[in-house]
Amino acid sequence: MHYTEHTLTIDSPPDLVYEVLADIEGYARLFPPTESAKVLESGDGYEVARLVVDVSGQLQTWVTRREFEPRRRVITYRQLETAALVDEMQGEWRSLDLGDGRTQLVLTHEFRARQAVGDEKVAGRFTTEEADALLQQAVERNSHADLGAVKTECERRVRAAA
Amino acid sequence: MHYTEHTLTIDSPPDLVYEVLADIEGYARLFPPTESAKVLESGDGYEVARLVVDVSGQLQTWVTRREFEPRRRVITYRQLETAALVDEMQGEWRSLDLGDGRTQLVLTHEFRARQAVGDEKVAGRFTTEEADALLQQAVERNSHADLGAVKTECERRVRAAA
Repeated sequence: MHYTEHTLTIDSPPDLVYEVLADIEGYARLFPPTESAKVLESGDGYEVARLVVDVSGQLQTWVTRREFEPRRRVITYRQLETAALVDEMQGEWRSLDLGDGRTQLVLTHEFRARQAVGDEKVAGRFTTEEADALLQQAVERNSHADLGAVKTECERRVRAAA
Repeated sequence: MHYTEHTLTIDSPPDLVYEVLADIEGYARLFPPTESAKVLESGDGYEVARLVVDVSGQLQTWVTRREFEPRRRVITYRQLETAALVDEMQGEWRSLDLGDGRTQLVLTHEFRARQAVGDEKVAGRFTTEEADALLQQAVERNSHADLGAVKTECERRVRAAA
């Protein structure tokens, strides 16, 4: 299992950042690789959504369960149905108050790639090692892109409201 | 100018993490690449210290000015005298409260490598592009190592006190 944390400072209050993150269908509009996001089910403090995302030029889809902790401004996610390379994927979005209307946004990933079994390669194409390396690269690249997209949108809203 | 942020969750209260970070001479003992750290001057809310650090197999030295904000648990640093590849280097250590005795530790770097001038290479050996790439790699590697060393020490103290 791999574990990573990525972060970015955002010049917007933590409640606004949390609000942007909590709206998964809106998030799809602001992050270009996300083709679609659809809430399949929602209930007390959670939702289940299907995402379709362009990952390195290939459309991938997965189903995520998100749990909301608005008091701590934390959203945890866990993939119930994973993309082709992924055996397990979960983590948190944390929107931490830096004071002065600024936020420390943190994204964590705990994940494991699928393993090749016998003659069967991962996603029909990759050895276990290749799948692991590709997934680590995708998490690294997408984390920076995700954080950057949230920052751009939150700071745009602050300017628009000014 | 490059700007990076790195982060790690620590299973220790933010006051303890801040205390570990604030003791720069103690820090030298817990982070093996640091050969020595010596406070040259200290005053109201700041200190100036000289560090000698093994960076990728070569001893480097610089002088840093650190400013303390214990209420926000932030330490800002700025290099007054830089190492061979470095034109400018500054940033922050932030010890953010995650609740439940846990801390989100964040380390930011704002930096620029030295530029080759005419026939004179950077540190006598590198083109501007090489110096820039080497410095970016060193910041990336050292950030993870620094955060990991702080986490190990803080969690050791929590266990020792239990």
